[in-house]
Amino acid sequence: MGNQLYSIVEGGGVTTPKGFKAGGLHCGLKKTDRHDLGVILCEVPAAAAAVYTTNLFQAAPLLVTREALGQGGILRAVIVNSGNANACTGAQGEADARAMQANAAEALGVSKDQVAVASTGVIGELLKMDRVNSGIEKLPAKLRGDVQGSDDFCQAILTTDLVKKVSCVTLNADGRQVTIAGAAKGSGMIHPNMATMLGFVTTDARIGAPLLQEVLREVTNLSFNMITVDGDTSTNDMLVAMASGLADNTELTRNHPDFAAFVDGLRHVCAELAKAIARDGEGATKLIETTVIGAASDEAAQAIAKTIIGSSLVKSAVFGADANWGRIIAAVGRAGQPVNVGTVDIRLGDILVLEQSRPVPFDEDIALEYLKGDTVGINVNLNMGSGQATAWGCDLTYDYVRINAAYRT
Amino acid sequence: MGNQLYSIVEGGGVTTPKGFKAGGLHCGLKKTDRHDLGVILCEVPAAAAAVYTTNLFQAAPLLVTREALGQGGILRAVIVNSGNANACTGAQGEADARAMQANAAEALGVSKDQVAVASTGVIGELLKMDRVNSGIEKLPAKLRGDVQGSDDFCQAILTTDLVKKVSCVTLNADGRQVTIAGAAKGSGMIHPNMATMLGFVTTDARIGAPLLQEVLREVTNLSFNMITVDGDTSTNDMLVAMASGLADNTELTRNHPDFAAFVDGLRHVCAELAKAIARDGEGATKLIETTVIGAASDEAAQAIAKTIIGSSLVKSAVFGADANWGRIIAAVGRAGQPVNVGTVDIRLGDILVLEQSRPVPFDEDIALEYLKGDTVGINVNLNMGSGQATAWGCDLTYDYVRINAAYRT
Repeated sequence: MGNQLYSIVEGGGVTTPKGFKAGGLHCGLKKTDRHDLGVILCEVPAAAAAVYTTNLFQAAPLLVTREALGQGGILRAVIVNSGNANACTGAQGEADARAMQANAAEALGVSKDQVAVASTGVIGELLKMDRVNSGIEKLPAKLRGDVQGSDDFCQAILTTDLVKKVSCVTLNADGRQVTIAGAAKGSGMIHPNMATMLGFVTTDARIGAPLLQEVLREVTNLSFNMITVDGDTSTNDMLVAMASGLADNTELTRNHPDFAAFVDGLRHVCAELAKAIARDGEGATKLIETTVIGAASDEAAQAIAKTIIGSSLVKSAVFGADANWGRIIAAVGRAGQPVNVGTVDIRLGDILVLEQSRPVPFDEDIALEYLKGDTVGINVNLNMGSGQATAWGCDLTYDYVRINAAYRT
Repeated sequence: MGNQLYSIVEGGGVTTPKGFKAGGLHCGLKKTDRHDLGVILCEVPAAAAAVYTTNLFQAAPLLVTREALGQGGILRAVIVNSGNANACTGAQGEADARAMQANAAEALGVSKDQVAVASTGVIGELLKMDRVNSGIEKLPAKLRGDVQGSDDFCQAILTTDLVKKVSCVTLNADGRQVTIAGAAKGSGMIHPNMATMLGFVTTDARIGAPLLQEVLREVTNLSFNMITVDGDTSTNDMLVAMASGLADNTELTRNHPDFAAFVDGLRHVCAELAKAIARDGEGATKLIETTVIGAASDEAAQAIAKTIIGSSLVKSAVFGADANWGRIIAAVGRAGQPVNVGTVDIRLGDILVLEQSRPVPFDEDIALEYLKGDTVGINVNLNMGSGQATAWGCDLTYDYVRINAAYRT
């Protein structure tokens, strides 16, 4: 990743970049009194971009957001509810998503084709629109430009998540301070290719919508698409980015001297959010970070890293702090990628357990101690080429089963 | 599957077909006193065939068995140990597998290139060959042609399995009674494409090795390759079939009038073993049987059925008796197959829960009662074409996590 071209903003949030306010409140979609309706508003038209779930069944809000972004790549606001995914809800669901868009636009005083809509929660039930609408009416009064606004928004998008997920960096673009921030939710149904997660990026960089779209896609492939919690992908995932341009830098292009810094900063924000989602996976007690090097290509490394991180057996072994490298190499061997079966090294953190595909004696007590930590590294060197990738996941625990055995009830 | 062309033999086993004896004993590879070494012996040279794991890392016994079958497709015996997979054990492991083959051949008085070797258990540890060898010496005295011999063998191949898995059918081939039987093990690391399972088929049918190989592959794709427990595939899976020819039928060919009956009988045996493996999946409390019809092709139906049965979220919901069809349709949508998003029907058993991709009101109490049963059917109609497939799996439970959090210890 080279030298870090950005600085981390501790305590920053989606309202830190210039031009953004955010807020959240409880409108009654969740059974608890936690926030379930949130909004981000940009004070100027923002260049916008988005990536969506690859699931064939796409929820109504995605259709509406796609349409809005198709009108020139400009957004003023995004309205989000949790507690109900508005998915598999047919024509009424689509009408409800459009009503959310129109009502939010009216309440915020912006054009409705500049409002994105996102929903997350239970599939197949109609939204209680009376509650959504009365919540939308109260939202403008909740808008804040400080960290509280960001916090309220972050809380409003959570479902089974235990913690809010936020990241913020700043960098320099031709002498101007550019800030990039992001908020996300996601806990179950997390898998490569935008699985049950919502992500929202704000920045005050000046960048055109088409380039923002390209960069967002590239960065997503190295961050959100490299995590898995349970291999399931959802009907509702989306990542929306809005750039206010108020940092007043010369518009970013691929030739801009600080373009690499912007991309690296955006990658950092998205990777931090992705890791936070993995660590907060349903029932998880640990973050697992799998790095594959020496692969035939980056794509091969990605596929292998994701296969390891997606193995229920590997995930269970990590939960049990069991240095079971046999399951790791079995995952390497079934990833469908070129592997030289005689040259694989595996390390748990720094502890070498397999060298040239043969077991190496290691201190089980030291390995146990390492595996009991809250972050476990699985490092594989195929010793074939220069391809590399990192993927993130979590352990498989009793609580994952408990949470998912009765989600609807 | 049309009219049944075979009869089930209750209480039959791998020793039921003419010409086979089997046995098992405890040689000390398992910590408990359960059997861990087994053998099947055919009194005449048997036409033989096998299919193997697709995992790139293949255990030493697979190399040895492949070589044996390469010498003309004839086997006299198969020797199997549980408790240690002899995988990732390098040159010593290969030498050990060859020693198992040679020592078994000598003890049984057959040619060593007519002995197949199979192992299952922990990966990466060397076999305790002194124990294996002293067990092999005692094996001939344990050989029996009755059901006890089959039972002893079935027990010897188990690892975390809770129950022995056996199936037997008989059919008529030009007036002769032909019997087909099978035994299998498999509990974790079970996934399409021959994942951690061992299977052994015996038959007294007269059939050439090349045709037996073709039929075994075809039937495997409809049985063992349609089950998943956890999505992991192992380094050791194999299915070996031996045909003694002692039923004295005219040699089976694709034009033989009773060829279809033989294939159907073999399919039944393999499907019963596959279902038994799925039902006995690590920690499982239920068998899940997913049938997809109305798909664009059989291949599409297979992929969708396997995606549903492999979803941790679906598996957890079934464990919790939660009629969560949202997770089922999300799995349908991410299977990578053609789906008309507006025409999907989903039934839990006979209970319609989704029609034309829209939720249907159903009696939650009746659904709960159904989902509490020990077999749960998930039936999907895509209403697109005539492709269909059935896959089998099991629920994801606390016990799966418990078993796999500390398998080695």
